[in-house]
Amino acid sequence: MGRFQPFHLGHLAVVREILGERPGVPLILGIGTAEESFTWRNPFTAGERFEMIDRALHESALGPTLVVPLGDIRRHAQWVAYLKSMLPQFDRVYTNNPLTRLLFERAGYPVESPRLVQRSRFEGVHLRACLAADRGWRPLVPPAVAEYLGEIGAPARLAMLRPQRSAPSEEHTP
Amino acid sequence: MGRFQPFHLGHLAVVREILGERPGVPLILGIGTAEESFTWRNPFTAGERFEMIDRALHESALGPTLVVPLGDIRRHAQWVAYLKSMLPQFDRVYTNNPLTRLLFERAGYPVESPRLVQRSRFEGVHLRACLAADRGWRPLVPPAVAEYLGEIGAPARLAMLRPQRSAPSEEHTP
Amino acid sequence: MGRFQPFHLGHLAVVREILGERPGVPLILGIGTAEESFTWRNPFTAGERFEMIDRALHESALGPTLVVPLGDIRRHAQWVAYLKSMLPQFDRVYTNNPLTRLLFERAGYPVESPRLVQRSRFEGVHLRACLAADRGWRPLVPPAVAEYLGEIGAPARLAMLRPQRSAPSEEHTP
Amino acid sequence: MGRFQPFHLGHLAVVREILGERPGVPLILGIGTAEESFTWRNPFTAGERFEMIDRALHESALGPTLVVPLGDIRRHAQWVAYLKSMLPQFDRVYTNNPLTRLLFERAGYPVESPRLVQRSRFEGVHLRACLAADRGWRPLVPPAVAEYLGEIGAPARLAMLRPQRSAPSEEHTP
Amino acid sequence: MGRFQPFHLGHLAVVREILGERPGVPLILGIGTAEESFTWRNPFTAGERFEMIDRALHESALGPTLVVPLGDIRRHAQWVAYLKSMLPQFDRVYTNNPLTRLLFERAGYPVESPRLVQRSRFEGVHLRACLAADRGWRPLVPPAVAEYLGEIGAPARLAMLRPQRSAPSEEHTP
Amino acid sequence: MGRFQPFHLGHLAVVREILGERPGVPLILGIGTAEESFTWRNPFTAGERFEMIDRALHESALGPTLVVPLGDIRRHAQWVAYLKSMLPQFDRVYTNNPLTRLLFERAGYPVESPRLVQRSRFEGVHLRACLAADRGWRPLVPPAVAEYLGEIGAPARLAMLRPQRSAPSEEHTP
Repeated sequence: MGRFQPFHLGHLAVVREILGERPGVPLILGIGTAEESFTWRNPFTAGERFEMIDRALHESALGPTLVVPLGDIRRHAQWVAYLKSMLPQFDRVYTNNPLTRLLFERAGYPVESPRLVQRSRFEGVHLRACLAADRGWRPLVPPAVAEYLGEIGAPARLAMLRPQRSAPSEEHTP
Repeated sequence: MGRFQPFHLGHLAVVREILGERPGVPLILGIGTAEESFTWRNPFTAGERFEMIDRALHESALGPTLVVPLGDIRRHAQWVAYLKSMLPQFDRVYTNNPLTRLLFERAGYPVESPRLVQRSRFEGVHLRACLAADRGWRPLVPPAVAEYLGEIGAPARLAMLRPQRSAPSEEHTP
Repeated sequence: MGRFQPFHLGHLAVVREILGERPGVPLILGIGTAEESFTWRNPFTAGERFEMIDRALHESALGPTLVVPLGDIRRHAQWVAYLKSMLPQFDRVYTNNPLTRLLFERAGYPVESPRLVQRSRFEGVHLRACLAADRGWRPLVPPAVAEYLGEIGAPARLAMLRPQRSAPSEEHTP
Repeated sequence: MGRFQPFHLGHLAVVREILGERPGVPLILGIGTAEESFTWRNPFTAGERFEMIDRALHESALGPTLVVPLGDIRRHAQWVAYLKSMLPQFDRVYTNNPLTRLLFERAGYPVESPRLVQRSRFEGVHLRACLAADRGWRPLVPPAVAEYLGEIGAPARLAMLRPQRSAPSEEHTP
Repeated sequence: MGRFQPFHLGHLAVVREILGERPGVPLILGIGTAEESFTWRNPFTAGERFEMIDRALHESALGPTLVVPLGDIRRHAQWVAYLKSMLPQFDRVYTNNPLTRLLFERAGYPVESPRLVQRSRFEGVHLRACLAADRGWRPLVPPAVAEYLGEIGAPARLAMLRPQRSAPSEEHTP
Repeated sequence: MGRFQPFHLGHLAVVREILGERPGVPLILGIGTAEESFTWRNPFTAGERFEMIDRALHESALGPTLVVPLGDIRRHAQWVAYLKSMLPQFDRVYTNNPLTRLLFERAGYPVESPRLVQRSRFEGVHLRACLAADRGWRPLVPPAVAEYLGEIGAPARLAMLRPQRSAPSEEHTP
């Protein structure tokens, strides 16, 4: 589960690690906050993120995986029930997010924390700043994602969405 | 695009036909009305429908395909924009639904009507009635789906959700 | 759990029966479809229904009970999780609604069907028709509710909301 | 207040009558169910309806008027408060809809029923059927609206949206 | 009206004061932001808050009171109409919140400010911090609430939900 | 497009400039965030803002203009489709907001930046602070707006809605 804004090498390493632990067992990747896009925090649409993941996994010949976009329901007490209704069958959860851990443990699921997840959580912000400056972002993402980010003009989009110093508390809204 | 309540042999035939026309080009299957479940019209959750499709395609060794659950946005004028934001890149649309055809043609997409789609549109209602009566439904779905429908107790669920004659206009609501 | 449009003697009998089975154990009455009002199916606001129940239980000296208005979440797969988050602790469910029974049994709750519930399900429609005709409704509700329905001008409201023969399929909308 | 699907001569006559009663006092036209479009009941977008009204009033040199699109809030008990917050100041309401009358009278507004409104309520359905058959609709709308409906291809759209006999209970959904 | 996260001695004192002013007149306690839970600002579900209030009032033998969970409607202009439709009849409002005061005074209600309300407004944040540190919170709540908070493992939940220094601006989201 | 909280001389100058460039071509003014009111950022209802604009344009004999309230849809990827469905026909967009520019340019619209818009963007916050202090705001708005703001007691409302220093991060909520 992640927002994958964008999908980077940290995400890829986690996917490889989990798939390696249980070869042949499909991994479900939930794309969080799917309905949000064109904001600084979530610059890419769910479809664009799906495309990135699909290209990167294909490039690395990783699988089997299933990708599912997930909306924000804003009601944490129903979060587990929502995921159970939207996802194919699953029997364990991988996360380092303490709230996700709490909610799934309350519901009786085994929850595991891949060693690499924690680190990758902090790479998203840094990577978006690199994209906005169009500097140093290519080594942080899989080659297929780098190519795709170029195709869709990601650096220009990020530069435009970056919050300005003169009005730091306010996202751009159309 | 379909609701796949449940995924049946008509759907499978259409998938096979489209994949055969453009070998190697991924087909995106959108699961419509994803947020609805446990109603007569939409008895299965999006996750259960995803699972059915995944098992059936795997069983038939069909691919490449991508499955994406899609909510109802109830605003037809934004439907094309919504799909573009939720789906990986696509360049043509397969449908026999006249409204989907109209909306995508207005947006400049090529729209095609697979010969088999029309027929399959009417099989969903019939199939749900067979499931509710637990009679004659197995030959209408792929073997993997038949097995899955058995696992989750679909006939009993459908029997319970079937509208009663004495109150025909009202769905069960909890 | 019910919509209580309005609260009538059938509802009161069920409350009395359940309270009698487990004296001293509080009964929670969930007011369903709380956000809807001024329609033929749901003519009274959640607040008005709360007021009716409160007056009727007080009049009959029945208790202990807790009344909780509940919105429609339109996502059956999350219905049990929603109720668990909105209601005080409960350990069994009373209903004759087959979907409510199914969903709570799937979640592991004991579900019971009070003998009288079934009958009371069909009294709501009849009672609203009587109110719209302002004839024969008083013996069907507790005295305190009859008085309250008079105070708020219920017969006139129902007469206005009744669907007309000339346009039977369409609710009045403002 | 109306849905104006489409704006026809009955609507125009009502506007003329009300403006004639209080010359110089602006009339507010609320476009109801603004967010719905491309359905049989609401085939035109709020913007298209705004355009029709604007052209028709300009053609007839009627004024002053203000046009305001209004969403459905589905909570009748908040309907008056919603309208008060969305509309410029108003001091009376014109309607023959009994629920609108009830809600505004409860809120203390004078409510009037223009003689012509009742008749015009039933022209919408007939007019949409004429459009779908592309026959006999031109004399029912102002010339400017007839021209506009031609520009946007309204007859073809309506023909496509018309519910089919073989599945009468189900709107087309994309 | 309050969010009661959690229900503490300040809230209890206000309830006692208001009930003392008009003995026998029922007091309605509205639980605000009912749909939010498992956040730092709103850690407890509406049902848990209802349970706390119910136990605390029973313990103190205070009454008569009615408890009603209330959603956030995010449209202040409709707030009074929403409350009128959700609550049993009421004839005055107790608050020190200036916006609640403004909106109800505009609607013609008498609004009173209990002496103790102001102080209690600031105790919620402090109390949640004490719970997260599991230190010094027991004397701030009624004994029945202290016992209940223990039962549901409140300190561990709050410790987990507390915003971290390293990412102060972002709530945990699953 | 703007939120017009409130409509001030900067807005009026932009309207005059655009109307001057294309005499006789109607200008559409979209009132953004129409559903929000009684907050510090959006103190006035959509109806009040409509009233201000209508009075100011009438006072200045500016026209032709059309005013349309627009909700926030929170889904940027559908923003252009939403506006196209809600507004009468338009063929160019005036804005200095970089996100609006980006989204409309992606959709193929010509986008222009009136010289004066930039400046006016920053006047809203300052003007609201002046209103809250009831000092120096009259020269910043058209005379008709100043009169209207007096009629509806705007200074008192703003003073009440102003965030307090002691709790700077939290809007008043009822």
